[in-house]
Amino acid sequence: MSEPGGGMAADIAEQPDVYARLLEPARSEQIAAIAARIAANPPRHIVFTARGTSDHAALYAAYLTEIRLGIPAALASPSAVTVFGARPDLRDALVIGVSQSGGSADLVEVVRVARETGARTLAITNNPGSSLAGAAELHIDVAAGHERAVAATKTYTAELLALLLLIEGVRAGDGRPGAEELAALGRLPGLAAGVLEDQTPAQLAPRYRFAGRVVTTGRGYAYPTARETALKLMETSYLAALAFSGADLLHGPLAMADPDVPVLAVVGSGPGGNAMREVLAKLGERRADVVAIGPSDAPGAALRIATPDVDERYAPLLDILPLQRLALALALARGENPDAPRGLNKVTVTR
Amino acid sequence: MSEPGGGMAADIAEQPDVYARLLEPARSEQIAAIAARIAANPPRHIVFTARGTSDHAALYAAYLTEIRLGIPAALASPSAVTVFGARPDLRDALVIGVSQSGGSADLVEVVRVARETGARTLAITNNPGSSLAGAAELHIDVAAGHERAVAATKTYTAELLALLLLIEGVRAGDGRPGAEELAALGRLPGLAAGVLEDQTPAQLAPRYRFAGRVVTTGRGYAYPTARETALKLMETSYLAALAFSGADLLHGPLAMADPDVPVLAVVGSGPGGNAMREVLAKLGERRADVVAIGPSDAPGAALRIATPDVDERYAPLLDILPLQRLALALALARGENPDAPRGLNKVTVTR
Repeated sequence: MSEPGGGMAADIAEQPDVYARLLEPARSEQIAAIAARIAANPPRHIVFTARGTSDHAALYAAYLTEIRLGIPAALASPSAVTVFGARPDLRDALVIGVSQSGGSADLVEVVRVARETGARTLAITNNPGSSLAGAAELHIDVAAGHERAVAATKTYTAELLALLLLIEGVRAGDGRPGAEELAALGRLPGLAAGVLEDQTPAQLAPRYRFAGRVVTTGRGYAYPTARETALKLMETSYLAALAFSGADLLHGPLAMADPDVPVLAVVGSGPGGNAMREVLAKLGERRADVVAIGPSDAPGAALRIATPDVDERYAPLLDILPLQRLALALALARGENPDAPRGLNKVTVTR
Repeated sequence: MSEPGGGMAADIAEQPDVYARLLEPARSEQIAAIAARIAANPPRHIVFTARGTSDHAALYAAYLTEIRLGIPAALASPSAVTVFGARPDLRDALVIGVSQSGGSADLVEVVRVARETGARTLAITNNPGSSLAGAAELHIDVAAGHERAVAATKTYTAELLALLLLIEGVRAGDGRPGAEELAALGRLPGLAAGVLEDQTPAQLAPRYRFAGRVVTTGRGYAYPTARETALKLMETSYLAALAFSGADLLHGPLAMADPDVPVLAVVGSGPGGNAMREVLAKLGERRADVVAIGPSDAPGAALRIATPDVDERYAPLLDILPLQRLALALALARGENPDAPRGLNKVTVTR
């Protein structure tokens, strides 16, 4: 593991196993029990609180919550509570804190205050002994194992899958996703392993060797993938990576796009991908260099990283994998060690 | 107005008058009447829906809602409703659509669906004849007058003030902000005029003539200012401008900061500004070039744009003014016309 990037490479490679482990009855039944409790007395709204990579998992879960459960979802700004002393009345809410380390003081405080004021609380972490797990009434351990690199990869996708299992379990009512859903989930470890065999990401990395900035974009379920890709590129390769929902990109930032700004566009095969078509057309007018990530050719894209054709709500668990590998390969091409980015520690404590 | 940037300069210069107009009884009573209705039967949570610049006004209002009213606030992802067909149960909610044009189809759809499912709905626009104003049960006209430039300036700050008047009115109970609050609000037009006399922004612009990217940051109420500054720089000067809450900056993106990445940090004189001190210290370790915006010297900042020492909840109405002028001056220094950025129209319609 002393080889630069060896830790991140090992973390990335483990993701099919992480999926398989979370889907085993021992783990999935733990999540189902919590989902059943939530379904028995559904909250009027769900508030997620998270930072960094985990905030992107929370964003994914917010889309799932609204689309699959019809329950309004929000991403909390911890500073309202921790810096300005806000005490929002969350009696009708379920507050879910998401954090790989479970160690960020601001999230612990948000969950503690929410629980005191009558909210139900749930922590989703990779550390059952953490402060966040202790502060919440309920806890889900994503069981991703020790993460070697500072840049989170397998803990991100483990959080995605745990949140998906939770929300589909609430939707089913008894906590267990239905048979069809389970069959689709059961295919994810194999699909993830297949995606990781593709060598396209390493081949693409040299194209970005001298890029100073990059734009990432996607809509709906694919927007968290765009956000997480941007963060990985910032953390490992020190690029100025700007993530926009496809719609927000058209409200101003589009002006910045030109042939010298590479774009990574996540384009699925469902409603989100269809809604990206007008975004791709506008990027084409600006002669942007677009690489698409998705299951089919995207009009106007110069190149494509192929990912499996699955329902868009599963795609975030697969589409991010080649993008993690692109970040790793690019960092190495730039002579950086993505296992230990400058200026960062594994556990970031913010207030 | 044929001179490049003349439209944006005129829009910026009008902001003290826009504040004064909104504070006149004819306008403020209209807002007070709506605030009183909301206060009489407070929602369990408030959901904002907006795009682009108006999304930053909504973010400001979300902080105000949680801190000043103790009501949970969320920023909706319109695509959940418009692209994926989500029908979140918003019976307990007040849904507020914010849009200068009132013409974006996705916001109209979110408000229409929310109203159908039993939510109370309010539109805040600069166009009382717009689709969004028509779709919502209630409407506040921010009365900023015709905006000449594509990049929004006076409509942004008019939205901020309208939202502040609304929320302080709800807090007071009878719709009218209290006497002390009204006195503080009454000082804003004069303070804004004073800020606009400062020539620092134009003097600073040449420093960024050849910058390819910039980071903007702030916490709490100052975070919307950081976001809006980044958008202005992208729209007018085509910089890769990355906005982070101070806390999120420490969760990964900090790695990207180095002496070649300029940072604009909004540092107020209250809890948000204090919480920025650790962020400034970390940026100092990375030898980042920091220019602070705020009322007092910020440790580690190379330069400062001075703004009035007001409660942090008023600061967004003043701090953005020199940053709008910086964006304008930088665009002109780069030979661009900020009144008509490439690739953009005044009304952006997204679905």
